[in-house]
Amino acid sequence: MTEPRLVYKSGEFVPESEATVSIFDTALMYGDMVFEMTRSYNQAPYRLRDHLERLYAGIKILEIDCGLTIDEMEAATLDTIDINRDRMPEGIDYQIMHNVSGGPMALYSSVFPKGIKPTITINVWPLTWHIAPYGPKYESGIHCVVTAQQSVPARLIDPKIKNRSRIYYQMANILARKVDPDAYALLTDEDGYITEGTGNNFYIVKDGTIFTPEGRNILRGVTRAAVLDLSAELGIPCVEKNIEMYDVHTADEAFISSTSMFILPVTKFNDLPVGDGAVGPTVKRLISAFSGTVGVDIVAQAHEYAALANAD
Amino acid sequence: MTEPRLVYKSGEFVPESEATVSIFDTALMYGDMVFEMTRSYNQAPYRLRDHLERLYAGIKILEIDCGLTIDEMEAATLDTIDINRDRMPEGIDYQIMHNVSGGPMALYSSVFPKGIKPTITINVWPLTWHIAPYGPKYESGIHCVVTAQQSVPARLIDPKIKNRSRIYYQMANILARKVDPDAYALLTDEDGYITEGTGNNFYIVKDGTIFTPEGRNILRGVTRAAVLDLSAELGIPCVEKNIEMYDVHTADEAFISSTSMFILPVTKFNDLPVGDGAVGPTVKRLISAFSGTVGVDIVAQAHEYAALANAD
Amino acid sequence: MTEPRLVYKSGEFVPESEATVSIFDTALMYGDMVFEMTRSYNQAPYRLRDHLERLYAGIKILEIDCGLTIDEMEAATLDTIDINRDRMPEGIDYQIMHNVSGGPMALYSSVFPKGIKPTITINVWPLTWHIAPYGPKYESGIHCVVTAQQSVPARLIDPKIKNRSRIYYQMANILARKVDPDAYALLTDEDGYITEGTGNNFYIVKDGTIFTPEGRNILRGVTRAAVLDLSAELGIPCVEKNIEMYDVHTADEAFISSTSMFILPVTKFNDLPVGDGAVGPTVKRLISAFSGTVGVDIVAQAHEYAALANAD
Amino acid sequence: MTEPRLVYKSGEFVPESEATVSIFDTALMYGDMVFEMTRSYNQAPYRLRDHLERLYAGIKILEIDCGLTIDEMEAATLDTIDINRDRMPEGIDYQIMHNVSGGPMALYSSVFPKGIKPTITINVWPLTWHIAPYGPKYESGIHCVVTAQQSVPARLIDPKIKNRSRIYYQMANILARKVDPDAYALLTDEDGYITEGTGNNFYIVKDGTIFTPEGRNILRGVTRAAVLDLSAELGIPCVEKNIEMYDVHTADEAFISSTSMFILPVTKFNDLPVGDGAVGPTVKRLISAFSGTVGVDIVAQAHEYAALANAD
Amino acid sequence: MTEPRLVYKSGEFVPESEATVSIFDTALMYGDMVFEMTRSYNQAPYRLRDHLERLYAGIKILEIDCGLTIDEMEAATLDTIDINRDRMPEGIDYQIMHNVSGGPMALYSSVFPKGIKPTITINVWPLTWHIAPYGPKYESGIHCVVTAQQSVPARLIDPKIKNRSRIYYQMANILARKVDPDAYALLTDEDGYITEGTGNNFYIVKDGTIFTPEGRNILRGVTRAAVLDLSAELGIPCVEKNIEMYDVHTADEAFISSTSMFILPVTKFNDLPVGDGAVGPTVKRLISAFSGTVGVDIVAQAHEYAALANAD
Amino acid sequence: MTEPRLVYKSGEFVPESEATVSIFDTALMYGDMVFEMTRSYNQAPYRLRDHLERLYAGIKILEIDCGLTIDEMEAATLDTIDINRDRMPEGIDYQIMHNVSGGPMALYSSVFPKGIKPTITINVWPLTWHIAPYGPKYESGIHCVVTAQQSVPARLIDPKIKNRSRIYYQMANILARKVDPDAYALLTDEDGYITEGTGNNFYIVKDGTIFTPEGRNILRGVTRAAVLDLSAELGIPCVEKNIEMYDVHTADEAFISSTSMFILPVTKFNDLPVGDGAVGPTVKRLISAFSGTVGVDIVAQAHEYAALANAD
Repeated sequence: MTEPRLVYKSGEFVPESEATVSIFDTALMYGDMVFEMTRSYNQAPYRLRDHLERLYAGIKILEIDCGLTIDEMEAATLDTIDINRDRMPEGIDYQIMHNVSGGPMALYSSVFPKGIKPTITINVWPLTWHIAPYGPKYESGIHCVVTAQQSVPARLIDPKIKNRSRIYYQMANILARKVDPDAYALLTDEDGYITEGTGNNFYIVKDGTIFTPEGRNILRGVTRAAVLDLSAELGIPCVEKNIEMYDVHTADEAFISSTSMFILPVTKFNDLPVGDGAVGPTVKRLISAFSGTVGVDIVAQAHEYAALANAD
Repeated sequence: MTEPRLVYKSGEFVPESEATVSIFDTALMYGDMVFEMTRSYNQAPYRLRDHLERLYAGIKILEIDCGLTIDEMEAATLDTIDINRDRMPEGIDYQIMHNVSGGPMALYSSVFPKGIKPTITINVWPLTWHIAPYGPKYESGIHCVVTAQQSVPARLIDPKIKNRSRIYYQMANILARKVDPDAYALLTDEDGYITEGTGNNFYIVKDGTIFTPEGRNILRGVTRAAVLDLSAELGIPCVEKNIEMYDVHTADEAFISSTSMFILPVTKFNDLPVGDGAVGPTVKRLISAFSGTVGVDIVAQAHEYAALANAD
Repeated sequence: MTEPRLVYKSGEFVPESEATVSIFDTALMYGDMVFEMTRSYNQAPYRLRDHLERLYAGIKILEIDCGLTIDEMEAATLDTIDINRDRMPEGIDYQIMHNVSGGPMALYSSVFPKGIKPTITINVWPLTWHIAPYGPKYESGIHCVVTAQQSVPARLIDPKIKNRSRIYYQMANILARKVDPDAYALLTDEDGYITEGTGNNFYIVKDGTIFTPEGRNILRGVTRAAVLDLSAELGIPCVEKNIEMYDVHTADEAFISSTSMFILPVTKFNDLPVGDGAVGPTVKRLISAFSGTVGVDIVAQAHEYAALANAD
Repeated sequence: MTEPRLVYKSGEFVPESEATVSIFDTALMYGDMVFEMTRSYNQAPYRLRDHLERLYAGIKILEIDCGLTIDEMEAATLDTIDINRDRMPEGIDYQIMHNVSGGPMALYSSVFPKGIKPTITINVWPLTWHIAPYGPKYESGIHCVVTAQQSVPARLIDPKIKNRSRIYYQMANILARKVDPDAYALLTDEDGYITEGTGNNFYIVKDGTIFTPEGRNILRGVTRAAVLDLSAELGIPCVEKNIEMYDVHTADEAFISSTSMFILPVTKFNDLPVGDGAVGPTVKRLISAFSGTVGVDIVAQAHEYAALANAD
Repeated sequence: MTEPRLVYKSGEFVPESEATVSIFDTALMYGDMVFEMTRSYNQAPYRLRDHLERLYAGIKILEIDCGLTIDEMEAATLDTIDINRDRMPEGIDYQIMHNVSGGPMALYSSVFPKGIKPTITINVWPLTWHIAPYGPKYESGIHCVVTAQQSVPARLIDPKIKNRSRIYYQMANILARKVDPDAYALLTDEDGYITEGTGNNFYIVKDGTIFTPEGRNILRGVTRAAVLDLSAELGIPCVEKNIEMYDVHTADEAFISSTSMFILPVTKFNDLPVGDGAVGPTVKRLISAFSGTVGVDIVAQAHEYAALANAD
Repeated sequence: MTEPRLVYKSGEFVPESEATVSIFDTALMYGDMVFEMTRSYNQAPYRLRDHLERLYAGIKILEIDCGLTIDEMEAATLDTIDINRDRMPEGIDYQIMHNVSGGPMALYSSVFPKGIKPTITINVWPLTWHIAPYGPKYESGIHCVVTAQQSVPARLIDPKIKNRSRIYYQMANILARKVDPDAYALLTDEDGYITEGTGNNFYIVKDGTIFTPEGRNILRGVTRAAVLDLSAELGIPCVEKNIEMYDVHTADEAFISSTSMFILPVTKFNDLPVGDGAVGPTVKRLISAFSGTVGVDIVAQAHEYAALANAD
């Protein structure tokens, strides 16, 4: 049996159960923690540096001095992967989470006689259970639902900073599940444009062109950048443009993207079929091409992990 | 020497250092933790039930089933106070913090082999250091600054739910301190109305009437309710009404209120004097009357705690 | 067997099957028809003049010259009731509908060789089937659901003019029924305030006071005026004020009002109980008092009509 | 003398006088009827399939099941044209109107003892009178006026669905005519961008490039698509872009487009000349080229129809 | 013949022709001059101190240090009146204008070898020509027109500061006169509420109560305060409340107020009659009562001044 | 010693001290004066015609008939330069200012017994002092600060008309200087997009591409057009696109442009470094290339003028 995983915490490695944040931490008080989720393909982290650059853009704007340069953060990340390599099942891909906040607030310093320092955690865990449910969804597609909960516009809370003040994601999830317990919430902004899912980016395909919302009221996903790159390689036009609900209703295909599952087809939107209601050729082509790029058949992997998870 | 304080955590009492939240907790993932800050006067919690009712309104809307009725939560709070009574300096008032979230997200359940349950913490700590800095401010007043960071409107994230998705508070603090390191940030909404400070409510006095923003894009503070009640008792008209910056610039007095300091006079607004720039008679009258009500001279207490803190 | 009902149509009485509007009518081309729904109690129309005054305010603003003074319209209404009195079942209350538009558009005059005149229809029909379903709802209450479909603000289309451009009502109905097939859609405005249902006004009760949205982005219902009058008679404070979703979630009671059913209790809001989830005392008191005022036990009537409808 | 025209109505052909809609139809109750206007050139319908596709996009979103597939609707349209061919003057072009709604509302089913079905009408009529007034306007240009009545944004009522809830068109017409009885109303959105006329699309020409508002708060006209196609053929750049009033004031040319008149030059805007106040070369070139494409000199036709109308 | 009038200019009295502002003055560069218009009744300035207090609120917020205290400004005003008393026709009321700006901008100091100081002007002139045209309007009422030009919201430019950046007033005037050359422009805000005229406040009367817009997106007129005071004295309820166009269309009476003419009845609104289209009893009562208060029959004065102006 | 400069004023040349505007001028009353600032390079006016075309667009929209054609205005400008050539130091570049307004308001005509005519001024002055401070800034860069004062959206006051109603520029300056006395205010619009500085346009550089805000809520600067032209010549992509604060925080370089200084690097934004905090290569390349184009080393000139100014 493998030893328990270890977590990098502000300079030390601690057991996973200690991968926690004080209730006096500004991360909770103000929700101003910045984080990243990176996954591996064939046990190699995918676009780690891009994730870290986004992390450092966020902490610059929030004026959090975490004490590590980006190179040091990258090194600490690789150390965390290394130290846990034997603590995770062999040959299984994993997720990496980074968390950075200013640490406990000075106001509460009397509670911390040993002093206060910024909070940094880096931890990894196998993707087995996480990815297992996606298998059938690559084939059936998912159902996206727009609710009364809108995105907070970037001028008020900038979603381009991957931060923790996302209670509106949760409210959107709650409301979407009232329409369909399996639905994925999709957000719109004050102009009625589609923004993003609660943890993923959104795309439609119309007459052979992919459209995805402008990088404004959304997290500019690393996987979104990968989709843009991949489309360019495949010669599929991919345009960043405001998308309205009408455009989804009249699209040929739709899909979402995120770190863990790459992309999932969207075959139902607000209870109506997208296109003919089946997974379309563009989505299939992207999944197939990306599987080639990363050297992992991502649909097969999801099915394989589902089998492992069930066997567990 | 007193023993270390204990924290109520989902049914148990644990050392304060364990008063933490998992990095997989929805409280961090979505910032959807609900919390309360209550303080004591003469070691008796002030309007505890009002705080708990607001807490339960929040978890109802966020559909968090914390497993405790409000009566059970109140009992657990009193237990937490009791168990810590000898662990805090005698005769010193204390703060009580409640935190409630749905606990770690089901998505990450593989990380929690022992299972997942909602997160509840109740903890107390002496107000000595917290209140110490207020002493001189009751006499000088504070400086409130409006920045480019606006309030998030209630239709997007409702501040009437005391929640943790408040990164915009932090941004407002950062920007206000660029104008004056001692400034208190004051927020406005998309209509330009004053809403609240980043953790306090705001008031002006004009021609003998107190005005405070409508209970919309603000936390409806328990101390705000106390100010409304106290004004009624004193026969000072107190009106809930939209306030613009112009109204502050032409007001006779201004002040803020919050749980820990009751009220603080605001004598400077965007670098210009409020009224004649001195603490006004209405603020003095409210402080004096409230001291009588709670049986604690709140200004004297702040000075006394400052002396204790310095002696520490 | 009774003879078929007759409809007043621009000066004549025609069979009900001819109570139609040309597809070239501006009522369809622009949706700019103004209408009214009035009901009888004990076969006497209730507040007919108030309905007609609202109708005439609408056609004034839309600059429709219908050719009848308000007094002539009232007389034509009473004639329509008289002529149909023996054509409706005895002792059954009825609904009256008025429709006024500018008639077919001049652009299409070649299609109307006999000339064009404004469209006016007045028709009546028994309320039996219409009211029958309400019986159990007076006891169980209804479920109101807020969807992504917002009200159109009054500055763009004024709902105070009871007009036919209400496609957004229909979209809200469609979306609400996805959450619960029996749900009643409730609309909000761009500020997140509750406005109205799709054909009814909304109210909450908190600490003994009734609150209903300001008369802005709503139809100012004739029944709403009746509720305000009745509350005043009963000594129940009733305040016109912006209401947010938070206020409904923390209310003691809620209800809607409309011409046909007077008021119905709202016991569920966005899938959460309103107050304790049961019909509250204020709603019961209003229903009982109104039944006295109009001389009709409105709950009993709904049950009686349900029996008649089933027997049909 | 020709026989009276027939109208397709939910499966049957009825006289034109019966081409009506019940006052209980949802088309009137909610203004949620979807419609299309198609015209012929040389007695052949122009881009009929594009019109029907837009019609079916609309009824999909409004969840109206009209009972006909799009192919069946096309066949019924051709049948309607055929059956009326001898009922219209020879050699004259005609307009086709489609209307689809859900039919009378279930609530009022007691009024319809024979049952309820969706409303579908297809009718045709000669364009003689309709087009007659355009003759001189191709030469003088028209006057467009922006009023206080703005477009309803697409997030509230989507104008891309050609629907009947357009009372704001009528209000804009009323207000524009107060400035100039011959003025055409032009709408703007909440951002101040030009959207569309009340039944037409808008364009400016600046330095040899045509600009037309993005396909958002407008009906995406079939003729607009024809203008985009034609410009591409002629090598005139045509850009979909937000247009402000300033841009119209500083444009070289402006014009509107719609099904019946193709395009009309706009030579006056808010009482000020557009460019030098005369019809410009781009407009002339488009009219000439389109006349070639459809095989009809559209300006000559308008003059010819005017002569016929006068002779009538 | 009287000597030419003198103008107080930054400490000196100069001929009226020198009552000018440099083109390098911030008053022109930024439009940030603050001003006041006060009139006399029986040659005594009316509520001068109220005007000056508003002036000083404005310059405080704009951080203009004009070098005079408010008392000194009042004295300078009275001096200006005195010095001009014999320079104006006897027994004629006059207008007083105050202008204050920061003076020429430091950037352009090289153009001012003698140095730069704040700009202050105080000047007076007889009201003869100014008031003459009002005579018939007290009897006929005026026509108010709402155009596409909206008020700038107070959060962007605060109209409560009587400042010179009012180009939108001019645009509204231009547009209103296109509807009716004699029309008075009336502004609305982004919510569609009536705000003010371009230099006057607006009121409606409904069922015996006067309503005037809240003191937000308007200049809080000194005459407006006089109307509120006078109504209170007369026992006429006067409520500050958001007013929509619908409210004007359904009002019994309407009127505007400003310094020079006190109030003028509004008998036409957007080309439709207000109430019955005649001057109503409330307006008449206010004019009569105010004439008593100030000791001047204001309608007679306007007629008298018209006679003088014509005789001139 | 040189003779004093002369100013063109509505047809005459007057001494500079008379280059003033009456306090009754609509330029002050409504802030509706249109103006231009043009500078010379090597004593030749730069893009004068472009400035005049923008001036004439403005007066067209404001319906000011100034009495001069654009050709006459150009001639008057050249005359003004000529007449002042010997009145300015030799070899020094100069600024030209045009001002046009409708002149004193008709309402105040009694104050102007000689009659009223439009106000036109054209004046020139050497740039020595004006440009002197820029020298070190070309090397250090400037600090741009976003404040609570937003731009007025173009739909309310169009900044594309270079007009005098810019009090919000002044408020932004006041607020920015509270953060840093040397800061340049930068404005944002209601969507949070960067618009412009208070008298300059803004740009960022990211991955070799220049981005500048769309020509909407900004003055479309003549120098901005020059930057677009120059970039095209140099093969640097330059895109007009909405820019958010996040984009500035993550940019490689930033700069502003205006008539007098061409461009200045922005090295600090809201107190955080832009890129690495130093002047970047794109800015340097633009300055160098533009110096070549206009035949003036603009950085050297600023240093030279500083020396002259100090020697003065």
